[in-house]
Amino acid sequence: MNITESLEKLNDLQAKLSAYGHAMSIIYYDAATVAPRGTAQNRARALSVLSEETYKLSTSEETVSLLEYLDEHRNELSEKETRTVYLALKDIKEMKKIPMDEYIAYQELLVEADDVWHRAKEQSNFNLFCPLLEKIFATNVKFAKYCAPDMEPYNYCLNKYETGLTMEKCDEFFATLKERIVPLIKRIGNAEKTDDSCLFGQFDEASQEKFSYELMRTMGIDLDHCGLGTTEHPFTTSIGSHHDVRITTNYDPSNLSYSMFSVIHEGGHALYDMNSADDLAYTLLDGGVSMGIHESQSRFYENLLGRSEEFINYIFPKMQECFPEQLKNVTADEVYKAINLVTPSLIRTEADEVTYCLHVMIRYELEKAVIGGTLAVKDLPSEWNRLYKEYLGVDVPDDKRGVLQDSHWSGGGIGYFPSYALGSAYGAHLLAKMKETVDVEKCLREGNFAPINEWNREHIWKYGCLKEPAELLEAALGEKFDPTYYTDYLEKKYSRIYSL
Amino acid sequence: MNITESLEKLNDLQAKLSAYGHAMSIIYYDAATVAPRGTAQNRARALSVLSEETYKLSTSEETVSLLEYLDEHRNELSEKETRTVYLALKDIKEMKKIPMDEYIAYQELLVEADDVWHRAKEQSNFNLFCPLLEKIFATNVKFAKYCAPDMEPYNYCLNKYETGLTMEKCDEFFATLKERIVPLIKRIGNAEKTDDSCLFGQFDEASQEKFSYELMRTMGIDLDHCGLGTTEHPFTTSIGSHHDVRITTNYDPSNLSYSMFSVIHEGGHALYDMNSADDLAYTLLDGGVSMGIHESQSRFYENLLGRSEEFINYIFPKMQECFPEQLKNVTADEVYKAINLVTPSLIRTEADEVTYCLHVMIRYELEKAVIGGTLAVKDLPSEWNRLYKEYLGVDVPDDKRGVLQDSHWSGGGIGYFPSYALGSAYGAHLLAKMKETVDVEKCLREGNFAPINEWNREHIWKYGCLKEPAELLEAALGEKFDPTYYTDYLEKKYSRIYSL
Repeated sequence: MNITESLEKLNDLQAKLSAYGHAMSIIYYDAATVAPRGTAQNRARALSVLSEETYKLSTSEETVSLLEYLDEHRNELSEKETRTVYLALKDIKEMKKIPMDEYIAYQELLVEADDVWHRAKEQSNFNLFCPLLEKIFATNVKFAKYCAPDMEPYNYCLNKYETGLTMEKCDEFFATLKERIVPLIKRIGNAEKTDDSCLFGQFDEASQEKFSYELMRTMGIDLDHCGLGTTEHPFTTSIGSHHDVRITTNYDPSNLSYSMFSVIHEGGHALYDMNSADDLAYTLLDGGVSMGIHESQSRFYENLLGRSEEFINYIFPKMQECFPEQLKNVTADEVYKAINLVTPSLIRTEADEVTYCLHVMIRYELEKAVIGGTLAVKDLPSEWNRLYKEYLGVDVPDDKRGVLQDSHWSGGGIGYFPSYALGSAYGAHLLAKMKETVDVEKCLREGNFAPINEWNREHIWKYGCLKEPAELLEAALGEKFDPTYYTDYLEKKYSRIYSL
Repeated sequence: MNITESLEKLNDLQAKLSAYGHAMSIIYYDAATVAPRGTAQNRARALSVLSEETYKLSTSEETVSLLEYLDEHRNELSEKETRTVYLALKDIKEMKKIPMDEYIAYQELLVEADDVWHRAKEQSNFNLFCPLLEKIFATNVKFAKYCAPDMEPYNYCLNKYETGLTMEKCDEFFATLKERIVPLIKRIGNAEKTDDSCLFGQFDEASQEKFSYELMRTMGIDLDHCGLGTTEHPFTTSIGSHHDVRITTNYDPSNLSYSMFSVIHEGGHALYDMNSADDLAYTLLDGGVSMGIHESQSRFYENLLGRSEEFINYIFPKMQECFPEQLKNVTADEVYKAINLVTPSLIRTEADEVTYCLHVMIRYELEKAVIGGTLAVKDLPSEWNRLYKEYLGVDVPDDKRGVLQDSHWSGGGIGYFPSYALGSAYGAHLLAKMKETVDVEKCLREGNFAPINEWNREHIWKYGCLKEPAELLEAALGEKFDPTYYTDYLEKKYSRIYSL
């Protein structure tokens, strides 16, 4: 074995993994968009073969010795090669610490949990889901102890979605948000109410779709490499590499803004995924590095840009072209106020910019308490409801609109939620930094996203997974991340809207 | 090695091949329906890995010795197992004769050719596509020589789509058709003209789609396992097994019948594919056995049933429901005459039942001449145009409506076309046989396809690839196939319509 041959083998391995990944992504995408209803079992057979082959390929003795050889010679490798070997070995080492039978049992548990969670949510019956959720939490703790015996289990969970994140950092982060956002919400509550009735009416799917493409083009998304589909829940996925990305939305025929901001949000994910440097394609370093950074981009486009006054002024005439009848007596300012209406509510995915982080904080606190052993899974609903009352002042009428609303826990995604709030706050700091060299307001007024995208490409997107999230962020910011940029932004924007 | 273990290994092998096939089918289906335009190269990389893995799996030493062992013990195997081993070995023996790098290069060529053909057709520019088509023809000849050095290369190509077919049989078959159809076309040309103006107007895509689903339901297609998509060129594909089948159509907003008969045609393919016996799923025996038999089913539903007076009388009120304004002053009889209007034309897929086989015959003669070395690929357009003038009396205005109209050649489907004409003729003979026990006219009048589908299931569909095409056909017919059933059918039907 020599370095050159080994690197060739590493390339072959990545090409294969990328091809299997491509196949599985497109099967999932088809399933979510157009597959006939009765085809799940047929699909499961193919996915099971493809994921088994992927697992074998990633963890075979040949692969491990290849990676270990390269790791021993890392002083002869490029930065990109070193990082690839590091990430691959890290994954394998962890995977190998989990006994195979327990790993398989956990995968089976998640399949069952997904099914049971759907039914439990339908019936608004937490007890149905409780025993499975107990097992999911317990398994996450057990696996954390296998993989990182010296780490707090919840810190291990957080790290899966944002390398370097700890409870300490989260606590400090959420404390800052809470200190500033809770009083802001109170002041907004006492201010004169605004109105969002212009967003409701009849908006046919074909016109909404036309408007979606208008939004994607305005955002500078290359439609030759990014598709748009329709699914129950909006998402973004890469197919094999950053050269083929798909976003999805869901058209609510009575609501203009739901799909609009889904498209802009997913469009932000897509821009990040699509703009990895070209030489990262078909490697393990292609695409976004972490959920926090990903959300910093999606929520940047959705909120910091998409819900800005300048952007709404630019896009409003195009909205009117798509919905001439519905919007004939509406002004841009009314739309701006409507899409920024602040009101404490029950459902995270429908929450406004101000209250959103509190929804996330509640989930963080609950996960931390369960994993820390101070809260039993069976007591999650009552604690959920207590915190919603305390932070948001709302009464949760049932578990469907409470503890059962999100799919994350049934999918094993414990430790995922904080990245939504972190991403929002990262974005505000990045925007402040961007404004030092880019006239963002002018870009938005003119619907010219090129300078904005160029800044993001140069500072975030092109790196793919080359750097750790914290390292990437600090290099882009030129300083340590500071969440007060976010709270300042919220206070300033909403004080103006609500004349506080 | 013992029989039980070997059969288990054979099952594992087929499960893997089915999974890779599933992945490749869904990638192709996505590409044809919704993939962004610029993603062909990205897709080519994944397909190249997947086809390489398929090739390796199918032809590995382990696989060959497994199959040879089972072949030596075929007296201990079931009919199904014996046939599986026979077909797999036959494929491998041929595949092994093709050097792997050439096989992979050919797969990549086809991906590129598909992309280039689309653009060439759009621009009506054969020169753009010509170099790729030359390579496709040359590779087909080269592969034919590798695989069957003692066979005429074009006979080898024909056999890929219809085992046992030869140029000699085709020549005789087409001579019979030509002898009866050319005079029939002449007599129709001299008869009083019928009118198809009721099929033209404005038919919005959403209503056409609604009508498509109505047609699929009427035909007895299980919509839980069969999807409908939109593509430039209608087609049918199975995804992994007969439990997931997709058909596509193309909506011409000015023409009511184009998509209608595409859907019925592809629906016929789908019914055949979806109704393999259940124990054939995920094996090499799943789905249709040959293109000739496949077309016998698709053209059976499209023409023998779909263009019959009884079916049109049944479906017409449903057409009127979908297009109330457009059809308010139209009668079922006008639609029946319109969809059976005979007129020599340019586009095969839009051709009427009578002239259709001449379109096919032209392609057969051109392929035969190119592979026989008497015609250069670059001269295909002029020769195409000459034959259209000679057989159909029409002037071809451009390559888009001429030599570039079909997708078959860009997909490597050389030798495929004759199966369309053969299938049409098989269908007419099968219909005559079916009528001995099924009151087909009554079924069509009532829109009750169940007895028709049941006959086809019992005599054709359920066998999958268990029998050779000729054997299957003769067993269903109870006698040797006779093309004069088809010419008799055409003469009788069109003599009535045109009062000849």
